[in-house]
Amino acid sequence: MAITFQLEARDASARAGRIATPHGEVETPVFMPVGTQATVKGLTPEMVRGAGAQIILGNTYHLALRPGDELVRDLGGLHKFMNWSGPILTDSGGFQVFSLATQVKITDHGAKFKSHIDGSPLELTPERAVEIQQNLGSDIAMVLDECPPAQSEPAKMRAAVDRTVKWAARCRAHHSRPDQALFAIVQGGLDLEMRAGCARELVALDFPGYALGGFSVGESPEAMHAALPACAALLPEHKPRYLMGVGRPEDLLAGVAAGIDMFDCVMPTRNGRNALAFTADGPIRLRNARHRRDPAPVESGCDCDCCANYSRAYLHHLFAAEEMLGPTLLSLHNLAFYLRLMREAREAIRAGRFAAFRAACLARWNAPP
Amino acid sequence: MAITFQLEARDASARAGRIATPHGEVETPVFMPVGTQATVKGLTPEMVRGAGAQIILGNTYHLALRPGDELVRDLGGLHKFMNWSGPILTDSGGFQVFSLATQVKITDHGAKFKSHIDGSPLELTPERAVEIQQNLGSDIAMVLDECPPAQSEPAKMRAAVDRTVKWAARCRAHHSRPDQALFAIVQGGLDLEMRAGCARELVALDFPGYALGGFSVGESPEAMHAALPACAALLPEHKPRYLMGVGRPEDLLAGVAAGIDMFDCVMPTRNGRNALAFTADGPIRLRNARHRRDPAPVESGCDCDCCANYSRAYLHHLFAAEEMLGPTLLSLHNLAFYLRLMREAREAIRAGRFAAFRAACLARWNAPP
Repeated sequence: MAITFQLEARDASARAGRIATPHGEVETPVFMPVGTQATVKGLTPEMVRGAGAQIILGNTYHLALRPGDELVRDLGGLHKFMNWSGPILTDSGGFQVFSLATQVKITDHGAKFKSHIDGSPLELTPERAVEIQQNLGSDIAMVLDECPPAQSEPAKMRAAVDRTVKWAARCRAHHSRPDQALFAIVQGGLDLEMRAGCARELVALDFPGYALGGFSVGESPEAMHAALPACAALLPEHKPRYLMGVGRPEDLLAGVAAGIDMFDCVMPTRNGRNALAFTADGPIRLRNARHRRDPAPVESGCDCDCCANYSRAYLHHLFAAEEMLGPTLLSLHNLAFYLRLMREAREAIRAGRFAAFRAACLARWNAPP
Repeated sequence: MAITFQLEARDASARAGRIATPHGEVETPVFMPVGTQATVKGLTPEMVRGAGAQIILGNTYHLALRPGDELVRDLGGLHKFMNWSGPILTDSGGFQVFSLATQVKITDHGAKFKSHIDGSPLELTPERAVEIQQNLGSDIAMVLDECPPAQSEPAKMRAAVDRTVKWAARCRAHHSRPDQALFAIVQGGLDLEMRAGCARELVALDFPGYALGGFSVGESPEAMHAALPACAALLPEHKPRYLMGVGRPEDLLAGVAAGIDMFDCVMPTRNGRNALAFTADGPIRLRNARHRRDPAPVESGCDCDCCANYSRAYLHHLFAAEEMLGPTLLSLHNLAFYLRLMREAREAIRAGRFAAFRAACLARWNAPP
């Protein structure tokens, strides 16, 4: 087994656990910073580690296009290439094909599309998705799935679910790397029956971990929050559960409450590059003129390098002057915020007070300033 | 005295020394990374320190315009604002007024101009240049000077020299901060007689340090190299000598040979942002396709974080993918290269082998690949 998962505590449906991987342990619930192109944007691996990250995510679609998975393999794998010695999870590339590539044509065989970089024609099949991820050498790989928009017709959703199940089986059959775990992905949108059928078939294939795909793809946050508990309950209890591409801090807490263990999202780094900071008292915009002379840190009590050493006034200046250090420092802080949130959620679960913790977070984030 | 200078060794005209400032010691010859807008572009202060920097430079013109010198003063000064605890030198803003601002009108009173940011009308006088730098709280401030282009008519050059001397006296009279040293600037272009007259008048005013301005402003490198020994010899022996805004690695070695102690230039960081790396075997362009699969570091034997942890192939990928980490890592390496060059020059001077060191550097940089 490439990974093992140990369930350490439960608090209603919320869980605290531990995933052992070939590159180290991960305490759950966990947030995975996104390193799309073999770098978490604007940060060195030391900064990412310093912010508290235990595992990061790489994007198969981007890395296969550039620099190419065989090049990464020949240079010693993704860990060495990007100088990240901890665990890495790679997605399958499917979501990016559907959202970034042009002229996408899906058949049961796979997805034909044109590169968003240079328009060159490419194909992603279940077998190729596995091959790319084996070349990258991630600790956890994901099966190729079809992820339709939230508002898709039932017939289209049904076809995507059927294809996702077939592709999962083909991925599993093609996967051979013993030091890499392959997770399955449950689709089915907001249709619980469709989700249940998909989960049942995938669980029968006995993957070492399961993800919920197809959330945060156009449905309302309320609809997602309402659907998560039942959907998470469809997944095996003693295996890691991963909610893909989600989301805002309140979405992470909803996911944890539903029994999810793993999350990823570009929001902390993307918002950080755009001068928006997450804080315990809700988000703030550092470009706002009211921060121009403010000697306070971005978030009082935060021990990240940004908050320990710099004022809101300095961050305001960096963004006004379009200096690279602004995006860097605020990405760092936002990651520290997300990672601390997950550590505190874990502590709360272990202490049996997660519901109170979640309620207190939401009250403070949403309180009038 | 805000600073003291100790001459430790001589090797022909080259010198090794030590400047003590209120924020720590500086070993000379020294290169000062440029932190124009209260940040060395793309790097945290920890990275700048890690690359070997002992002192950095801030730009008075930029900081007075944004965020404003009074704001920086109210927030505790430039060191605290930008989280750099070591020595800082600020220029006077004159050079930037002449090169960046629009509608510049110079009189004996000062320079009127319009901001390059928002077009607002501003004035920089000798007294205001001192006031700004006292608000910033740098360890070493520079007098306001007039820096004409290299090809200026003798009459214009003469007028600039006369004004520079008068302005230096006014700066000195206005300067009151006891924990800040004020350096004078010798102008006069490539006219040694003009330089000599300017230096004589400024030396009579007994500043704690002297700079050569008006180099690297359009003349050929050969002309500058030829002029430097005689110009440096015009400056007091037992005070620091600073060659402003210069230059390429070979220019620094020419300056050191001439008896210069301090240098600054945007080249290592600017070139780094543009994928050009300095190495012991000459410069390389990381965007070049021949680096695409190269597992070697940017510079073999370099102990900077970039070379210790990343391949040329990874840097090539970062620049191809337009990732911020590329400019960051290559700025870091280029600073490490410049700072190491100065450390090695210092060791060579102390060992009495600077001429051989310089010749070996030049031979290796210019050898065919």
